[in-house]
Amino acid sequence: MRRVAVLGAGSWGTAFAKVLADAGREVSLWARRPEVAAAVNERHVNPDYLPGVELPGLLTATTNAATALDGVDAVVLAVPSQTLRANLGGWRELLPRGVTLVSLAKGVELGTLKRMSEVVVEVAGVTPDQVAVVSGPNLAREIAAEEPTATVIACSDHDRAVALQHACTTGYFRSYTNTDVVGCELGGAGKNVIALATGMAAGMGFGDNTRASLITRGLAEIARLGGALGADPMTFAGLAGLGDLVATCSSPLSRNRTFGERLGRGESLAQAEEANHGQVAEGVKSCSSICELGARHGVELPIADAVRRVCHEGLSAAEMGKELISRAPRPE
Amino acid sequence: MRRVAVLGAGSWGTAFAKVLADAGREVSLWARRPEVAAAVNERHVNPDYLPGVELPGLLTATTNAATALDGVDAVVLAVPSQTLRANLGGWRELLPRGVTLVSLAKGVELGTLKRMSEVVVEVAGVTPDQVAVVSGPNLAREIAAEEPTATVIACSDHDRAVALQHACTTGYFRSYTNTDVVGCELGGAGKNVIALATGMAAGMGFGDNTRASLITRGLAEIARLGGALGADPMTFAGLAGLGDLVATCSSPLSRNRTFGERLGRGESLAQAEEANHGQVAEGVKSCSSICELGARHGVELPIADAVRRVCHEGLSAAEMGKELISRAPRPE
Repeated sequence: MRRVAVLGAGSWGTAFAKVLADAGREVSLWARRPEVAAAVNERHVNPDYLPGVELPGLLTATTNAATALDGVDAVVLAVPSQTLRANLGGWRELLPRGVTLVSLAKGVELGTLKRMSEVVVEVAGVTPDQVAVVSGPNLAREIAAEEPTATVIACSDHDRAVALQHACTTGYFRSYTNTDVVGCELGGAGKNVIALATGMAAGMGFGDNTRASLITRGLAEIARLGGALGADPMTFAGLAGLGDLVATCSSPLSRNRTFGERLGRGESLAQAEEANHGQVAEGVKSCSSICELGARHGVELPIADAVRRVCHEGLSAAEMGKELISRAPRPE
Repeated sequence: MRRVAVLGAGSWGTAFAKVLADAGREVSLWARRPEVAAAVNERHVNPDYLPGVELPGLLTATTNAATALDGVDAVVLAVPSQTLRANLGGWRELLPRGVTLVSLAKGVELGTLKRMSEVVVEVAGVTPDQVAVVSGPNLAREIAAEEPTATVIACSDHDRAVALQHACTTGYFRSYTNTDVVGCELGGAGKNVIALATGMAAGMGFGDNTRASLITRGLAEIARLGGALGADPMTFAGLAGLGDLVATCSSPLSRNRTFGERLGRGESLAQAEEANHGQVAEGVKSCSSICELGARHGVELPIADAVRRVCHEGLSAAEMGKELISRAPRPE
């Protein structure tokens, strides 16, 4: 892979573009806003999303998707999950034939209950083995600061995963290949919901035992759902499951965790939304689709369901805590 | 289980004794020091180990092991792992016949490479199905503050585990049974070593990505070792594996993590030891026994081995970081 397009210049798209460029790839970054593209090209910075980070010279930006996609070997999709379908629809005709499509988006589409790679296959009209996902404990600002980080590159086509692995290996970024796309995507989507729950616990003043218990039992329910959908249970013990979950549930940089903290302190959904620049956190949407997936497949998801009821049915975080701790004793 | 002895009045022993008493058991706590026993009996506190916590009236203390063990249905062993053999040797003749022995100690015995339940079976002369272990994300001070916590009670005799589960269920403490004693014990011993590694990373200034990666890959190597020793790999994805690891690696209350932080900032083992009241952290000892177990069973343990070389062979934490990130790319 010589030349790669990254579509979406938010913090994760920009940080991953930097990794690819640092690994020696020529990278074209598509930004929606002209001022972002200009800042990248003229000053090698993306001040809105990665303030203080110097971007490499092999990375250029454009607002023109056709320019970004010209002659690339791989296309990295770095737009929000609930807008991926609409964005990709506009780029479909510009994709080079046989190109590897890489999804960085994490979520389950509302309404269709599709994973992001399924949306890509459907909208781009490609075969599943052309689509890879990147998922792991990948807080963008830490990667941009070149802190040691590991991730998973999942693709049903192992050779394609290996090619992508080589395209993004640097002295601070280490990737592992995996063929379990379903497991990696569910890990990424589920963690936002569990991060809301751990945020609520922190907002109520609880410490590391409660958080670790929620992380562990949360991962167990995501893994049960994954198993029902054909994922490999061991994926959830890996970087795209546990790793991503731990980073997201621990970091003050996580929007889902911060959003949950506000709910745990007794703020309403509307108040938390207002504090989050007028947007709900991704987990607030995903908890509904994930609970719907669980119901469809007969999988019990006590934590996700409790989060859903706090977000959408007016249950208080305090009541949620009491319910979870007082469920009937059982084997692990 | 009506009456339970807890032998060892450190923070975890005292907190677990409080859980049992809050669950309605009559609890006798054995303390080595008379002033600790007096404080528990006269003022319902253990100021050295759980300052500020009021202990329940059903909990009494004594320095006389025979008194503590008189007529009990279960004995909880809450002394440090490397002293368990010597302590238990002195109590052996006082144990009621058929009693359940519960180990709270976490570690692998230096020299013999035995797990704590193996030491108990050997020294107490009981059958393995009489021995249970408790392991999970159980920071003592948070349990004593009645924060919601989950744990695992492992025993090869399921009925015994269930009896113990009922004996310690309270409104803030929830336990799950498991029959995989080996997995639970290795999770508990291994986490101290990985906590040293995450402490080192924090001491070098790295954030949540690096920590989550070390936790995930660290758990993977503990699980590989566990598999070789006959543990169920899924135990490591549970509360006694992942849960305990996450709590220990995140908490400023963890001595292993704090010890590692000092090494990460460039202090010597002697300096870190001096700052830790003249004691090395448990992981400093366990890393040697765990690496020896790995070598004996042909299991590669890159993180534990790196920790061992930092602790015992003068490798710097910075060199350790570089080595770990630059290993050859591979599947997860």
